[in-house]
Amino acid sequence: MYPEILHAQQVVLLFKERGIKNIVISPGSRNAPLTIGFSENDYFNCYSIVDERCAAHVALGMAQQLQEPVAVLCTSGSALLNYYPAVTEAYYSEIPLIVLSADRPPHKIDIGDGQTIRQQGVYANHILYDTQLEMLLSIDNQESIATNERLINKAINTAISQHGPVHINIPFEEPLYNKVEKPSLEVKVIDLLKNESSEIPDSFIEQWKSAQRKLVILATLNPPVFDNADLDILTSDPSVLVMSEVSSNVVHDKVIWGIDTLIAPIEKEDDQIKDLQPDLVITIGGMIVSKKIKQYLRRFETKVHYHVGKRRAYDTFFKLAGHIKVKPQKWVQQLPKDYIDSNYQDRWLSHFKNYLVKRQDYFAQMPWSDFKAFEHIFPSLPDNNIVLQLGNSSTIRYAQLFQMNESHTVFSNRGTSGIDGSTSTAIGAAMASDRQVVFITGDLSFFYDSNALWNNYIPDNFKIIVINNSGGGIFRILPGHKETDEFQTYFETQHDLTAAHLCKMHGVNYQSVSEESAFAKACNLLFTSNKGPQLLEVFTPRQINDTVLLDYFKFLK
Amino acid sequence: MYPEILHAQQVVLLFKERGIKNIVISPGSRNAPLTIGFSENDYFNCYSIVDERCAAHVALGMAQQLQEPVAVLCTSGSALLNYYPAVTEAYYSEIPLIVLSADRPPHKIDIGDGQTIRQQGVYANHILYDTQLEMLLSIDNQESIATNERLINKAINTAISQHGPVHINIPFEEPLYNKVEKPSLEVKVIDLLKNESSEIPDSFIEQWKSAQRKLVILATLNPPVFDNADLDILTSDPSVLVMSEVSSNVVHDKVIWGIDTLIAPIEKEDDQIKDLQPDLVITIGGMIVSKKIKQYLRRFETKVHYHVGKRRAYDTFFKLAGHIKVKPQKWVQQLPKDYIDSNYQDRWLSHFKNYLVKRQDYFAQMPWSDFKAFEHIFPSLPDNNIVLQLGNSSTIRYAQLFQMNESHTVFSNRGTSGIDGSTSTAIGAAMASDRQVVFITGDLSFFYDSNALWNNYIPDNFKIIVINNSGGGIFRILPGHKETDEFQTYFETQHDLTAAHLCKMHGVNYQSVSEESAFAKACNLLFTSNKGPQLLEVFTPRQINDTVLLDYFKFLK
Repeated sequence: MYPEILHAQQVVLLFKERGIKNIVISPGSRNAPLTIGFSENDYFNCYSIVDERCAAHVALGMAQQLQEPVAVLCTSGSALLNYYPAVTEAYYSEIPLIVLSADRPPHKIDIGDGQTIRQQGVYANHILYDTQLEMLLSIDNQESIATNERLINKAINTAISQHGPVHINIPFEEPLYNKVEKPSLEVKVIDLLKNESSEIPDSFIEQWKSAQRKLVILATLNPPVFDNADLDILTSDPSVLVMSEVSSNVVHDKVIWGIDTLIAPIEKEDDQIKDLQPDLVITIGGMIVSKKIKQYLRRFETKVHYHVGKRRAYDTFFKLAGHIKVKPQKWVQQLPKDYIDSNYQDRWLSHFKNYLVKRQDYFAQMPWSDFKAFEHIFPSLPDNNIVLQLGNSSTIRYAQLFQMNESHTVFSNRGTSGIDGSTSTAIGAAMASDRQVVFITGDLSFFYDSNALWNNYIPDNFKIIVINNSGGGIFRILPGHKETDEFQTYFETQHDLTAAHLCKMHGVNYQSVSEESAFAKACNLLFTSNKGPQLLEVFTPRQINDTVLLDYFKFLK
Repeated sequence: MYPEILHAQQVVLLFKERGIKNIVISPGSRNAPLTIGFSENDYFNCYSIVDERCAAHVALGMAQQLQEPVAVLCTSGSALLNYYPAVTEAYYSEIPLIVLSADRPPHKIDIGDGQTIRQQGVYANHILYDTQLEMLLSIDNQESIATNERLINKAINTAISQHGPVHINIPFEEPLYNKVEKPSLEVKVIDLLKNESSEIPDSFIEQWKSAQRKLVILATLNPPVFDNADLDILTSDPSVLVMSEVSSNVVHDKVIWGIDTLIAPIEKEDDQIKDLQPDLVITIGGMIVSKKIKQYLRRFETKVHYHVGKRRAYDTFFKLAGHIKVKPQKWVQQLPKDYIDSNYQDRWLSHFKNYLVKRQDYFAQMPWSDFKAFEHIFPSLPDNNIVLQLGNSSTIRYAQLFQMNESHTVFSNRGTSGIDGSTSTAIGAAMASDRQVVFITGDLSFFYDSNALWNNYIPDNFKIIVINNSGGGIFRILPGHKETDEFQTYFETQHDLTAAHLCKMHGVNYQSVSEESAFAKACNLLFTSNKGPQLLEVFTPRQINDTVLLDYFKFLK
């Protein structure tokens, strides 16, 4: 069945033509024509999620895995405002997300009708394309038919070609629930404009050749970006030092995977660390997680910075010289093979490897804490191609201190680095992936997105690990007095919540552990029982985590 | 103690000077200068709420009760996007709300720094005033000092004089946590511009005098707007028919308080209902809840519509002739005393009163259902000056079918009519009011805002009644097939959740009732035990509510 409303038919038919089959729907009446259109057509996979903030993050997680647009559909009024955090994350993480918001007809805005706000352009600051369809009241209105076709195509094209969020606002008048057997019109696909450039500028090649210290930073990357042979080529140049972040999904023997572990111990020793200063910096991927490398490259001024790949280029170090829009793999293969003499890579790689040996002694005496919990968690994860989703703030920062398993693929909402939808995003990823998804998060982030578990589509093998240190642990690591009421109330936000009740409410299997000796058994149970989603809550002490972490960097010094 | 950062001092000092003392704070690091400034100064009442969506609704509820601006403070990044639903509600409900968002300095936007988005102007569609302070780096920068003073004053003045939300975006650079004993500067209050007009146009008086059928609709009003004597004057004119909505907080013998009960039974009988058509419509207050009266006045075209009072005038019936910006009480007192001959009031008032007698027979045989639950709830509420907060969708619509207790004051988020923050708003109201607050809500709305209970400031006598019919009951009342999978999944959103686990998680006392015979006892317990917040979950059958309601209107016919 199809909705009787003609422009709703246009949306449904064009989405089908363009292969956009995953639709996350929140209940509403104004959006009934599209809900009917999608849910009564077998082509589409529809998912019902009530809380729009969660719904949009679920769609984001699905699109992140599928690397194709996923749509999220809501009713009129404040509903679409609740999408905004996920829209912004999609914008900065360059994930294709199509927001479909039902609206009243334009002349019914701001006349006092219920559930009616100014929806058009509401995401202006963080959207690639924002449009409003025309009310198509008659099949004879060829101009409106053509206009809507153009607008819908353009939205889809933009989401795909520019990798990000688009918004189609769609006015509907009552009656909303009428259906017809067959569509009353046909639709036309307007093709993507190809917009590719694969030139590496000569000026770059010159700079590359003459630079004795070239630093390549690999930030968030959807695999596969490099295969091992590419990394062999790249690191065979002794003047090239490659640093990877946890979300880069790159593991290679000659790549430094622990940026903070390398920098933090000597960051204040100018005489030692000044030699890390590169002549040329290359960034590849999305946002950089490590605050330390950003601070370092601003303090010890980078001379020249190029960004490689199709993702947006940010002038992170205030030295951006150019954006080379070729695929990173192709870029590696086109690099000159005549290497300049340099000990840049060798020196810092051996420095890093020394730290890795030394830190074993620290780990051996490290007390039960967040850091200790993470030391146990990463080696305990299944060694079989899982998707690892990491929450923001502390979780991703601790993860940066460990080498990831090569078979794992790592994701994190680093576009806005918000704590607001990590669980929903991980669940969306699990809904869209054939692989097992494991999500690791802190307590504040988990409770923030508590409605994420209100979701009927969570796969049985989905796992959550919550590190619960009774507050926002990240704040203890930042400056400020820690033992005042003000700190504990307005920064750390101390609480005594547990995830147990939410699990019971939403049918998620629950267990907890609060000491090192019990961890292995709990973790084993977590990964061997797949009869429904499982959550392991790891209780750690609230007050020692900052000391344990800062002492680690001191110890390495 | 004060923050070292000068423009943070300006905000804190000016807020104190202007008497803005209630500050809802969500944890973050970028906002540390203001968190320190407010929380370490005894003048301010600070409240720590983690989930920003809840935090902003809590501030909204406080401002709704206090009728003065309340501030809500967050860190940079997606945090402030989570305020947007409450900002929009404040915009349409005309409630003064001051959003303070910490930001990075302008040159650090869009260069790849973490937790950084385009914050300035992000609420453009729904804000009265949006500004960004200057980074004040030196006490000698007199121009920046004066500029910030002007901007902060203008934001406060706008929130107060225009009754709605304003946004001050405030860039801060590290170090963020430094404090000083005493402020380094003084601040200057720039006074409100008075902007009052108290003229009733002659043209209105002429139309009033000659209209034989004058319909006055009282929508959302913060009491006290009228006292009984005013209503006596207004209703002593036989050509004036007054209808009040549940959120108008007006109860009077000659006022029709049940608009839908009057209209629904005969809405399709044109020969009967055409005589309700007024010559002149006056609206007073905010949004009109009753969809039926709006539909009626569009179908049977209103001739002339005036809006009275300071609240925004909406052209709801497409016949707005003018906005008389005088206080409603003053307007009543200035109305002409020579009445035109008319039976308009008498006829429809007696019609309404007949319905009220007749409906007792329907109530007597009404089965256990949402409607039956509400029939029990309203007379069971304490008869002592409580604040009644109503959730959106079904709850407020059912409430419109009952006469409110004169001692109660009724509120509901009817600006956007969203289901997204009703519980938080009610809790905010309870935090700011000396009176007992009772909140009635449907299940979807309650679960949507589940993090509302993550709040350490809920008064011990706060009560919640959740009507749980296992889904979005409102959808059964709307058109469409009810027994398909599509309906139950994407419209009704059937679920088997209960509020019990959330109550346990957050230390709220819980009881439930699922049949009529047990209701009185449970309700009695709810209102007699005040040792901590209490929730009563009323389970009603999922499938019969639409029939029970529609049969009511048929029965009255």
